Amino acid sequence: MNAGRCLIIARFQPFHYGHLNAVEYCYRNYDETIIVVGMASQSHTPENPFTAGERILMIRESLKWAGHDLSRYITVTLPTLEVNRAAIHFVRQYSPPFKSVITLNPIIQRLFMEEGYEVITPPLKERDTYSGSTIRRLILNNDPLWKQLVPPPVVEIIESIGGVERIKMLYSERLPGYYATA
Amino acid sequence: MNAGRCLIIARFQPFHYGHLNAVEYCYRNYDETIIVVGMASQSHTPENPFTAGERILMIRESLKWAGHDLSRYITVTLPTLEVNRAAIHFVRQYSPPFKSVITLNPIIQRLFMEEGYEVITPPLKERDTYSGSTIRRLILNNDPLWKQLVPPPVVEIIESIGGVERIKMLYSERLPGYYATA
Amino acid sequence: MNAGRCLIIARFQPFHYGHLNAVEYCYRNYDETIIVVGMASQSHTPENPFTAGERILMIRESLKWAGHDLSRYITVTLPTLEVNRAAIHFVRQYSPPFKSVITLNPIIQRLFMEEGYEVITPPLKERDTYSGSTIRRLILNNDPLWKQLVPPPVVEIIESIGGVERIKMLYSERLPGYYATA
Amino acid sequence: MNAGRCLIIARFQPFHYGHLNAVEYCYRNYDETIIVVGMASQSHTPENPFTAGERILMIRESLKWAGHDLSRYITVTLPTLEVNRAAIHFVRQYSPPFKSVITLNPIIQRLFMEEGYEVITPPLKERDTYSGSTIRRLILNNDPLWKQLVPPPVVEIIESIGGVERIKMLYSERLPGYYATA
Amino acid sequence: MNAGRCLIIARFQPFHYGHLNAVEYCYRNYDETIIVVGMASQSHTPENPFTAGERILMIRESLKWAGHDLSRYITVTLPTLEVNRAAIHFVRQYSPPFKSVITLNPIIQRLFMEEGYEVITPPLKERDTYSGSTIRRLILNNDPLWKQLVPPPVVEIIESIGGVERIKMLYSERLPGYYATA
Amino acid sequence: MNAGRCLIIARFQPFHYGHLNAVEYCYRNYDETIIVVGMASQSHTPENPFTAGERILMIRESLKWAGHDLSRYITVTLPTLEVNRAAIHFVRQYSPPFKSVITLNPIIQRLFMEEGYEVITPPLKERDTYSGSTIRRLILNNDPLWKQLVPPPVVEIIESIGGVERIKMLYSERLPGYYATA
Repeated sequence: MNAGRCLIIARFQPFHYGHLNAVEYCYRNYDETIIVVGMASQSHTPENPFTAGERILMIRESLKWAGHDLSRYITVTLPTLEVNRAAIHFVRQYSPPFKSVITLNPIIQRLFMEEGYEVITPPLKERDTYSGSTIRRLILNNDPLWKQLVPPPVVEIIESIGGVERIKMLYSERLPGYYATA
Repeated sequence: MNAGRCLIIARFQPFHYGHLNAVEYCYRNYDETIIVVGMASQSHTPENPFTAGERILMIRESLKWAGHDLSRYITVTLPTLEVNRAAIHFVRQYSPPFKSVITLNPIIQRLFMEEGYEVITPPLKERDTYSGSTIRRLILNNDPLWKQLVPPPVVEIIESIGGVERIKMLYSERLPGYYATA
Repeated sequence: MNAGRCLIIARFQPFHYGHLNAVEYCYRNYDETIIVVGMASQSHTPENPFTAGERILMIRESLKWAGHDLSRYITVTLPTLEVNRAAIHFVRQYSPPFKSVITLNPIIQRLFMEEGYEVITPPLKERDTYSGSTIRRLILNNDPLWKQLVPPPVVEIIESIGGVERIKMLYSERLPGYYATA
Repeated sequence: MNAGRCLIIARFQPFHYGHLNAVEYCYRNYDETIIVVGMASQSHTPENPFTAGERILMIRESLKWAGHDLSRYITVTLPTLEVNRAAIHFVRQYSPPFKSVITLNPIIQRLFMEEGYEVITPPLKERDTYSGSTIRRLILNNDPLWKQLVPPPVVEIIESIGGVERIKMLYSERLPGYYATA
Repeated sequence: MNAGRCLIIARFQPFHYGHLNAVEYCYRNYDETIIVVGMASQSHTPENPFTAGERILMIRESLKWAGHDLSRYITVTLPTLEVNRAAIHFVRQYSPPFKSVITLNPIIQRLFMEEGYEVITPPLKERDTYSGSTIRRLILNNDPLWKQLVPPPVVEIIESIGGVERIKMLYSERLPGYYATA
Repeated sequence: MNAGRCLIIARFQPFHYGHLNAVEYCYRNYDETIIVVGMASQSHTPENPFTAGERILMIRESLKWAGHDLSRYITVTLPTLEVNRAAIHFVRQYSPPFKSVITLNPIIQRLFMEEGYEVITPPLKERDTYSGSTIRRLILNNDPLWKQLVPPPVVEIIESIGGVERIKMLYSERLPGYYATA
């Protein structure tokens, strides 16, 4: 046990087995894990269909299902930020102190590295399969394979909130300037 | 007459016969129509060449030309917003109460539906022809067909403000990061 | 008749006889009047209790009551802005072209003057009595005098939306940092 | 047991026995409690001296000290927002679904009530004594009484991060425009 | 000569002999001085009457008048920021690397200290006299003493842009919510 | 010598001989040149890899290398802005008065032209070769040609800050929603 606290940051759109794998690495190696839900202020777009609240629910129900002790997790919700050197310190502003950072996003990795943090690339399941973008695409195409890429509670949550229909509707047309209009 | 108030939301870049058709549906079926000009805070980009003020002018002059009573319309100007569940309530913040929502944008439709609003898809003229994107493209290519897709007052306004030249200039080069720099 | 278009800008919290007086000056002297609802993005604070939509309703119902032709008014909703030289051009961005500006706010007057606009101070009713701040204070103190300072439709709207209770609740305690927390 | 999920929202500057009392009410009556740390994006000002991360730490360590099961708490960090009708839906965007809202802030109470939520005023310890503002003032004045108003882990955290010195320095002078300058 | 680069940050509303004194300390002790104009995005308010551009002009003309070599100064314009731990890193984002920070603002001092920077309190002229707030108050009261508190080029610039009249007008009335309305 | 002051605006990602050529035009024809670093608030993205501070350093060291008198240059750092009519006045807010504008960006050219400014297209070196986008692409592909497109001090700065490695890492993967996540 490495002890101390680590921080894992992702968008979790939706939470899948690749994420679970990385979080399990944190769980085994650290006392506490801060889970930062990125772009928490965005939802209902093709790339970010789920709200931060829905994503927290997916994460917690999946970790319960996996038998983890939820008291060792801390959730943090981070609004969409412009990328710059200060962004990393915005994450620090929102989080209790942490020793290491776990993320797959190369921009975030680079920013944390340049600010002197230890950045850990988590052990990967096949990256191309276990990806939010792949899963959203499968849902869009009515391919039931998506249900094998996420923990069972995520399937339940997505179905209970009409998430399949939501994704299909959001992808149904791409108007220019689309994402930014209310 | 359905009575009550409805809300129609679009970017109106520029206002064309497809919009007029949808607004006429509102005019015939509701006492008052709230016209929400979306992304009002943006202009002078390829996708949003006209200011909100120019768009309001196009809308009002077209409705006068169509013989409508302008006193039954309410204009609202909405800044560019990040898309999320709260965005719909931002529209509510800006608008008098309304019963139904008219919009073609599937993201906005979805958001209003999930918040419990009646969403109406207006009777469509050929969607691909009567679209802002098609019209801007025609202007760019010196194809005079665009003048047949918008009401005559819109032609006059665009020409009087140098809109044709503006669109050509805005499309003349696409630098990366282009839209967001001042 | 001066002809052309003028612009009047205020917060209208709530719309009162002082505002009506200024708007009537616009109505008599210009073809069209742009009514800019300032700080449209704020509501439910002691200084800005009403939403922009509620304020538009107050304005329109009062002007109907006063027998004005609503087709000669254009409403524009302006989010809260940081004050600077560019703010005036933000107003221009949102509005059809205008010749003169009517406002009582000395900061806005100064900004428009420095940018070369004709700024008109409207004929005033007693300024201290007919002020939003006085009216909100009277409501808070259960003094029915407030109903004599606003047009009858504003009384009706405020009462129908629970505005009296809302103002009392918003003023009930002033915590530090109060206005900015969600 | 009321079951379901409730949401408690405050700034927690710092977390004190008044907060603990309210949280304990939640803990006894609901399955899960969402703790929303408001104005998470602000710190190092007289009214908001502590970062969101420091506040989360205070909350969690206090709840551990009180013997609570942390797995039944969900933390959410909310940036400073302009107050309006949409703000409540921003809270919904960030949080899993909840049945009731616990808050002492009358503006937030009013907003949730108008949007149809059940708002519960928690059983109060003496409000004037157990308040963040009182505690910060005591710290500023070197009055050790403050240590009796917060759970022991909060004393330890504040002392370990130099919080006493920080508060004294932040209050040492009030320049105009002070809070907003970097 | 300490060599290296230092950073001085203030609002400079307006630039006065207290600022000049601090900048001269920088000039004598460092190779290059970064002058950060804070709250650059605000102007035309009682506390921040001058634009960033006007302030840069005051600074440069005063330094020329004092016989300094302007090639050793670097100007940076920083928008109004919410105060938090990340704000210091926002300053870093905008500036070439620097060794020391010179500022009188205790919040900014604290933030830089906690992030590990050397913070220098510049040698002070009488702080209460040489302060922007005192100078704006003297201008407001037609007291010519203000001209003795700022370098001669600042007097000239303020007079040439109608700054005296501007300040009087901005201070002429304080409406609630005043600063934030456009 | 045209005298007066001109303004040149670009992102300078990184500063190259095309920029130097344009700046030299300014230097020869105007007393002072305002150099506006656009999108100063962004860094560490594929299109904007360098911070504003790093870019200022590149500019100043290149101009020293070219034998220019730095005292005739004024640097201004402009945050990322939404494009609209007001943006030009935001530039005015940040800058001392200027007579002419030098920029290659057609959107910025158009905005300044419509607001009545003289816009000068600088004498061009081959535009496609001397472009930030080309240079970043060459760095990415390990093609040493990039070192011939920028002044020697820019090579040194990029290498000393690990800029080559940074660019490679930032371009290493493009996740959807990538740029906006912290």
